[in-house]
Amino acid sequence: MKIVTCRAPVNIAVIKYWGKRNEKLILPVNSSLSATLHLDQLCTKTTVAASSAFQADRIWLNGKEQSLDNPRLQKCLREIRQRARKRKSSPSKDAGLPVGGGGSAPEEMLDWHVHICSENNFPTAAGLASSAAGYACLVASLAKVYGVEGNISDIARQGSGSACRSMYGGFVQWLMGRKKDGEDSIAKQVVSEDYWPKIRILILVVSDQKKATSSTTGMQATVQTSPLLKYRADVIVPERMVAMATAIKERNFETFAELTMKDSNQFHAVCLDTHPPISYMNDTSRTIVRLVHAYNAFYNQTKAAYTFDAGPNAVLFTLEDDVEELLSLITHFFPQGEETNGASFIRGLPVDIKTPSQELKAAVTFDPLPNSLRYIIHTQVGPGPETVEDQSQHLLDQDGQPKNLPK
Amino acid sequence: MKIVTCRAPVNIAVIKYWGKRNEKLILPVNSSLSATLHLDQLCTKTTVAASSAFQADRIWLNGKEQSLDNPRLQKCLREIRQRARKRKSSPSKDAGLPVGGGGSAPEEMLDWHVHICSENNFPTAAGLASSAAGYACLVASLAKVYGVEGNISDIARQGSGSACRSMYGGFVQWLMGRKKDGEDSIAKQVVSEDYWPKIRILILVVSDQKKATSSTTGMQATVQTSPLLKYRADVIVPERMVAMATAIKERNFETFAELTMKDSNQFHAVCLDTHPPISYMNDTSRTIVRLVHAYNAFYNQTKAAYTFDAGPNAVLFTLEDDVEELLSLITHFFPQGEETNGASFIRGLPVDIKTPSQELKAAVTFDPLPNSLRYIIHTQVGPGPETVEDQSQHLLDQDGQPKNLPK
Repeated sequence: MKIVTCRAPVNIAVIKYWGKRNEKLILPVNSSLSATLHLDQLCTKTTVAASSAFQADRIWLNGKEQSLDNPRLQKCLREIRQRARKRKSSPSKDAGLPVGGGGSAPEEMLDWHVHICSENNFPTAAGLASSAAGYACLVASLAKVYGVEGNISDIARQGSGSACRSMYGGFVQWLMGRKKDGEDSIAKQVVSEDYWPKIRILILVVSDQKKATSSTTGMQATVQTSPLLKYRADVIVPERMVAMATAIKERNFETFAELTMKDSNQFHAVCLDTHPPISYMNDTSRTIVRLVHAYNAFYNQTKAAYTFDAGPNAVLFTLEDDVEELLSLITHFFPQGEETNGASFIRGLPVDIKTPSQELKAAVTFDPLPNSLRYIIHTQVGPGPETVEDQSQHLLDQDGQPKNLPK
Repeated sequence: MKIVTCRAPVNIAVIKYWGKRNEKLILPVNSSLSATLHLDQLCTKTTVAASSAFQADRIWLNGKEQSLDNPRLQKCLREIRQRARKRKSSPSKDAGLPVGGGGSAPEEMLDWHVHICSENNFPTAAGLASSAAGYACLVASLAKVYGVEGNISDIARQGSGSACRSMYGGFVQWLMGRKKDGEDSIAKQVVSEDYWPKIRILILVVSDQKKATSSTTGMQATVQTSPLLKYRADVIVPERMVAMATAIKERNFETFAELTMKDSNQFHAVCLDTHPPISYMNDTSRTIVRLVHAYNAFYNQTKAAYTFDAGPNAVLFTLEDDVEELLSLITHFFPQGEETNGASFIRGLPVDIKTPSQELKAAVTFDPLPNSLRYIIHTQVGPGPETVEDQSQHLLDQDGQPKNLPK
C-alpha cells in the first residue's frame, strides 16, 4: 500500500473569478488573483492510499463516506492517472526529478484502487469556501501517490475553479488562458509567501448565514443574464490584473487595498445585475464595509481593505502595524455576543485587544452591533500544499480505513 | 395680486436616471423613463402669488420659511421670468393659445416679487422622493402665473433632474439630449395616464430608514469612480429605452416588468461599483425582491415587478387582477407591527386582503417579518400637474401670507 497525507490551503481572491466560458472544463471568463491563507489557521488535510487490496475507489469527507460518482472528483482522479501513465511511457522526462512520497509510482499502481479521506480544520457551516482547499489537497495528494509533478493546477481547476490557486503559496494568479482544451488555464505564483510578510488577514465570520445561491449556479446565471459581466471580464479585469500584480510586487498596500475593495464590490455588482439578482452580502457585511471606509477616512490613508466572496463573511487585509488597532475597532463595534458556547471569539494569530481611542470611535457613525459576528480568525499569507511527513497524522489506517469515523 | 395653485405628481423611474454629464445644467448621462403616480395618493401642492406689494421673493416649504438663496430655486424662477419676457417681446407666438390661470401676464408683473408656499401630502420622513414633485409643482405654478406655455420640462429639470418627468402624466421619458446648453434635454410623454389603466402600483415604505447618501452626491461619486456606469449609460440604457417604450405601447406587462426589475438592479449595481460603494437597499429590500421573484416563479409568469430608488423603499407594479393577491401575500410575509399609532397600514386605493393560498405561501421560503414595513400605499398611474380651481385651496391668503403656518 502506498499512502500520502497532504495539507492544502484556502485562498481568497482579490481579483474575483466569476463566470465560466466552458462549464465542463471550468475555464473562466477572466483571470483572477488571490492570496493563499496560512495552513496553520485554515486547511484541508487529505490522506490518499493506493493498494492492490482495495476493491474500489472510495472517499470519506469530514467523517462521512461519499459517492465518488461526482464527475468533478472522477475528472481529477482520471487526469492524475493519465498523467502518471504518460510519465511511464516517456520516462526520460522523469530523469533527475526528485519525487516526494516514495518516488515515481510502480507501473502496476495504475490499476490499483484508491481510498481518500479528507477533513477540514474549520467548520463547513462557517461559510468559508472549502472546495478550493479540498480539491487542491486531493490533487496534491494524488499527485504525490502517483509521482506526478509539474504544474498540476489545471487538474485542480477541473475539480473546482479556484482550487487551482490553492496549489501555490503567497499571491497567485489564475491565468484564464485562450486554448479550447484549457491547457493554458493554469495558476502561477506572483510572489511567494515570504515576499510581503507584513500583510495580515482577518476573517470576520458573520452570524445568521442564510443558504446562499451556490457559486456554480450563481456564476452560470450571471454569465447568462448580466449585461455588465462581459464588459467587466473583457475590459476591466485585464487592466486590474496587471495593476494588482504590480501593487503586490511593489508591496504598495494602498493600491493593493483599493483594488481589492473595488474588485469585490464589482463582483457583487454583477451579481446584483444578474436576473433574478443575487445578493451575497447582508446588512452586517455592508456595515463592515462602512467601518473599513470610516477607518481609512479617519487616517486619510488606506490602511485596511475588505473583500467578500459568495457569502456574507468579510475578509480584511491590513498591515502588521495596524492589525491590533483595526481588530480593537472591529470588536468594539461588533462585540462578542452571548452565544459563544465557550469558544474563543478571536482565533488564530495572537493579538492584544485594546479600547480604540475616543477620536477613532467617533469616526464610526453607527452603534455597536453585538452578535453580528460569530468569530474572527486572524491569519496571514501562507505556503501552498505540503506533504505531512509524520505517519501518525494519516487519516487512513494501515488497512486503508478511516481512523476517525463516528461510531 | 395674481395667485395660482397647482398640484404635481411624484414619478417613479423604470429606466433609471443616475449620473450627470453637466452638473450645473443637470444634463444626464442617459435617458430615463418613468411612471407618473396618481395625485390622489401622492402629490405636492404649491401656491404662487405675484404682487406689486411684495417686498421680496419668499418661499415656505411644508410650513417653514426657507431661504430662496438656493441656486436651483433661483434658476427656475429666473428661467420662467425670462421665458415670460420673451413671450412679451414676440407676442405673435401667443396668438390663439389658451392660457389658464388668468391669461398671459401683464407687462409690469415681470418686476413683481412672488410668494411661494408648498406642501407635500405625504411625510417627507418616509423617504419618498419629494424633490421631483416639488420642482414640477413650482415650475407649473410659476408658469401659470406668468402665462408661460409649451414644454417647460427643461426648467423643472434644472430644479431637480427627475422633476422634468413629473411635468406629464402617464409614462414619460426624459430624453438626455445632445446639445451643450441642454435645450434638447426634455421630458416627453410616451403614453397618457388613460392608456394602460390596468397597471397598479404598491409603495412599500420600509421601516428603519437610515440616512442615505443623497442622490446628488451619490451620482457624482458613481460618475467619478464606477467603471461600469459608462458602459451602462452608453450601451445598455439606449437599448432598454426603446424596449421599454415598446413594451408600454404594447401593454406587454411581462416585458415591462422584467425590464423594470433589471434596470433597478443595474442601477443598484453601479452604486455598488462606486468607490466607496453606495448601498441603498437593505435586508428588507432584498427580501421584498425574493418575494416578488418567488411570486412570479410560482405562476411561471411575471405578474409583479419591483423597483428601488435611492433608498430602501420598494415600488411594485402589477395588474389590477393580481393586486389583491399580491398585497395579501405581502401583508402575510411583512405583517403590520405594533408601532402604528393608529394610522392605517394600507393606504390609497381600496383592496380586500385575504389569506393567500397554502400553495402560494409555501412558495415563499422565508418566515414572516413583522415590523419590516411601516405602511403600504396603493396607487396607480396618474395625470401630470393640475391647476386647482377651488380658490379656498390656495396655501396663501389674500395678503399673500401662508394660511397654515404653525403658530
